[in-house]
Amino acid sequence: MRKLIILFGGQSYEHEISIVSAISLHKAIAAQCAFVFLSPDRRFYLIDLIDMKAEYFANGRYRKSVELFLARGGFERKTLFGRTPIDGDVVVSVAHGADGEDGKLAALFEFYGVNYVGPRLEASALSFNKLFTKFLAAAAGVKTLPYQTIRRGDTITIAYPFIVKPLRLGSSIGVSVAKDESDLSYAIDMAFEFDDEAIVEPFIADVLEYNLAGCKTADGWRLSAIEQPQKKELLDFEQKYLDFARDGKVKEAALPSETAEALREAFRKIYSQGFDGALIRCDFFVLDGEVVLNEINPIPGSLANYLFDDYETTLNALIDSLPRSREIAVTYNYIRSIRSAKGKL
Amino acid sequence: MRKLIILFGGQSYEHEISIVSAISLHKAIAAQCAFVFLSPDRRFYLIDLIDMKAEYFANGRYRKSVELFLARGGFERKTLFGRTPIDGDVVVSVAHGADGEDGKLAALFEFYGVNYVGPRLEASALSFNKLFTKFLAAAAGVKTLPYQTIRRGDTITIAYPFIVKPLRLGSSIGVSVAKDESDLSYAIDMAFEFDDEAIVEPFIADVLEYNLAGCKTADGWRLSAIEQPQKKELLDFEQKYLDFARDGKVKEAALPSETAEALREAFRKIYSQGFDGALIRCDFFVLDGEVVLNEINPIPGSLANYLFDDYETTLNALIDSLPRSREIAVTYNYIRSIRSAKGKL
Repeated sequence: MRKLIILFGGQSYEHEISIVSAISLHKAIAAQCAFVFLSPDRRFYLIDLIDMKAEYFANGRYRKSVELFLARGGFERKTLFGRTPIDGDVVVSVAHGADGEDGKLAALFEFYGVNYVGPRLEASALSFNKLFTKFLAAAAGVKTLPYQTIRRGDTITIAYPFIVKPLRLGSSIGVSVAKDESDLSYAIDMAFEFDDEAIVEPFIADVLEYNLAGCKTADGWRLSAIEQPQKKELLDFEQKYLDFARDGKVKEAALPSETAEALREAFRKIYSQGFDGALIRCDFFVLDGEVVLNEINPIPGSLANYLFDDYETTLNALIDSLPRSREIAVTYNYIRSIRSAKGKL
Repeated sequence: MRKLIILFGGQSYEHEISIVSAISLHKAIAAQCAFVFLSPDRRFYLIDLIDMKAEYFANGRYRKSVELFLARGGFERKTLFGRTPIDGDVVVSVAHGADGEDGKLAALFEFYGVNYVGPRLEASALSFNKLFTKFLAAAAGVKTLPYQTIRRGDTITIAYPFIVKPLRLGSSIGVSVAKDESDLSYAIDMAFEFDDEAIVEPFIADVLEYNLAGCKTADGWRLSAIEQPQKKELLDFEQKYLDFARDGKVKEAALPSETAEALREAFRKIYSQGFDGALIRCDFFVLDGEVVLNEINPIPGSLANYLFDDYETTLNALIDSLPRSREIAVTYNYIRSIRSAKGKL
């Protein structure tokens, strides 16, 4: 039987929800798991199952766990005479936010040849930035809301009410709605607390919102139920935190079949822009009957297990379909041919 | 005095030109340097100055050099009782193509807290992909040529003559011009040899081409001379290889001052899309008096030393201005507050 390495943590504003997410993901699957924690100071630790409680991390006791090091092919621990690999077949990352979703961990895994479930480098870097997400959606032919990117001091040209988000964050952190000028400075300060750039979009009250997760496997698409999330003006971080701990099942949204299919088609288009190897969740609006991409979650909370009836089957199918990096053969033919033509270099 | 670590190689189609680039860069500067080679199988080696010859890599003798390992703060070598850091203050990367320019090395350096000259993760991932380079230019307000991205089997809608390029490569590898249908299958095969996606653009014979390199430092912009590269339909890899070995100085192109200023302004706009920390070269066309971005080279051959009169001063000013990553403090406040509100998690 396959052993998964659930990776979580990271130097990220979403560090804490990642812990919750790892605990919830583990509850949702039967597979044997190892747990690797990435500490805020970017050290890896092998965590025993018995220690997989939020408290163990909050009080710093994780530092007593075995430290791991990333090396060719996977994680290693120190031994008396060197280093030895830890047991595990594939990394499943729930490191939300920076490190996990911005492309750093993807780059490390690709560099060291580690098999992993999660967005690849390019898809991470693009979807972590809300401006580039717009570009990605445009390339996919999927609509998004109008927007303006701002730096401190810029004049906002979008009409009230609008929503201000840090350019590079997930999980609603630093996001707020400005209904009129009295909300403006708070919304701006909030966003710039987390990034030097922000994105502003019109805020549409009572918008129809739908979430859909899935992945592409060797056998084809595996898409989740479509969820209509509970109406809230905005999930704050604490609500979101609890949201990441979800492991119950959701009710399929009541939707005309054409709308459901339009949502699935938009999902497939977005996913096809380089998300192979990841299980992602797309959050859509439906506006005047049209599907509009709101956000891509390339590593959704607890890997969106609660959206699937057959979650573990889906995860296993994805693991069996992970993309292989193109191996580049270096031949030194040019150096040789130029040396023979020109003498020594 | 500062010691630079010149990093080169990588698992990349541009591995060989990277070796030449490192040798040329070293010739162009007086600073003390260490040389770190990234082998095709992604091991790091510390190379003695005396071995910095193309032959040493082509014949595999580099494997006898000291192997290095990336760790917190920089490179380490094995010692009898553990590992010890190597000497060097800042990494200057001339790892062209994959690994170096696609964001993997940037991610590694950011993750391990290594000081480096080169494009950051996000700028790398974007500029390594010629489609996202178009988006980046659009965000910067700089024109590019019309284009079409294709996968194998797609019909090309751009009129002959056109140029076909692999979507994710530099250095003219896999690039060819199709003058009419008889060139088509060769051009297509050539591009798909290196990537699963390609980009097609109109080919404009005798287009005016200008190259400009530079960086932003704490003291402001430092831009190179504007070069009008020698007219060639297309540099093939061998010509390009020799091009990467350049260390002579170039003649400033004869240009009306408004055109020169328009080129510099376009450069500054592109660079401002996240290239802080890098010394990049932009290759522009001037079409009907308008500046059009052709390519961004986030790590140009031999770091474009030949374009500058005061190269080492520029490089040092850049090293003094490297961007600092935002440090994210993880407080565990949410875990604590939720625990106290809800009992154990």
